[in-house]
Amino acid sequence: MSCLFCRIAAGELPAHRIHEDAEVLAFLDLHPIRPGHVLVIPRDHHVWFEDMPEPLAARVMAVSQRLARALKATEGVERVAMVFTGIHVPHAHAHLVPMHHLHDISSAAYLANGLDSYSLPPQLAPAEMSAIAERLRKALA
Amino acid sequence: MSCLFCRIAAGELPAHRIHEDAEVLAFLDLHPIRPGHVLVIPRDHHVWFEDMPEPLAARVMAVSQRLARALKATEGVERVAMVFTGIHVPHAHAHLVPMHHLHDISSAAYLANGLDSYSLPPQLAPAEMSAIAERLRKALA
Repeated sequence: MSCLFCRIAAGELPAHRIHEDAEVLAFLDLHPIRPGHVLVIPRDHHVWFEDMPEPLAARVMAVSQRLARALKATEGVERVAMVFTGIHVPHAHAHLVPMHHLHDISSAAYLANGLDSYSLPPQLAPAEMSAIAERLRKALA
Repeated sequence: MSCLFCRIAAGELPAHRIHEDAEVLAFLDLHPIRPGHVLVIPRDHHVWFEDMPEPLAARVMAVSQRLARALKATEGVERVAMVFTGIHVPHAHAHLVPMHHLHDISSAAYLANGLDSYSLPPQLAPAEMSAIAERLRKALA
């Protein structure tokens, strides 16, 4: 078992555990964007968030909602972000980040004018948007 | 009814709609980080993602999972991010973003050495991590 998060779930590696139940585990990120940055994972190994069976994904969401409320109380922030990016550890994990600044969670596309700015990416041509939407609707069907 | 997303949900404002059902709506973001950037919202007005009743949050998650699979097919990406930040429109919305680059979704804390770099934020002292974890566990209880 080489997956870092499977090993944390199994108790083979230490972590600052915040919540655990039969299906879900939450623990502090070792390199926090802000103090209180928590990771929420399913105990079972799924690489991408969309790979989780729906009931398990619902459990991860529900624990994340509880954590967001707890983080608002302990960290004194107005907003908490919930983020899956699928980067680094290939075991689905939601980041819960107390937001002290607009760019605590952001995108390089919003930072075109520097780290202290915010800019909206350009709109696409209407025909391009329609084509993208049509492709997506078909892929969902 | 002044909420932008409530008005889209009610059909009062146009949008490139990708999915809709009795509880959830998905449509293209007008200023996409990448083509195919979709927003998933509950029809009912809830400001923060953690305000949604659990069954509704589960529906938003399930639709987001379906969209992530569809976006992988239509946009040819390996990963799709799912992100709640609570910024701009005060009606809970998940961003689904096809990831072409590490920093399509990122944090200013990861960009300390510039937009083309990636750096891990510093670890906190063990005693500080333990204190944060203890506070959070108590707030969850």
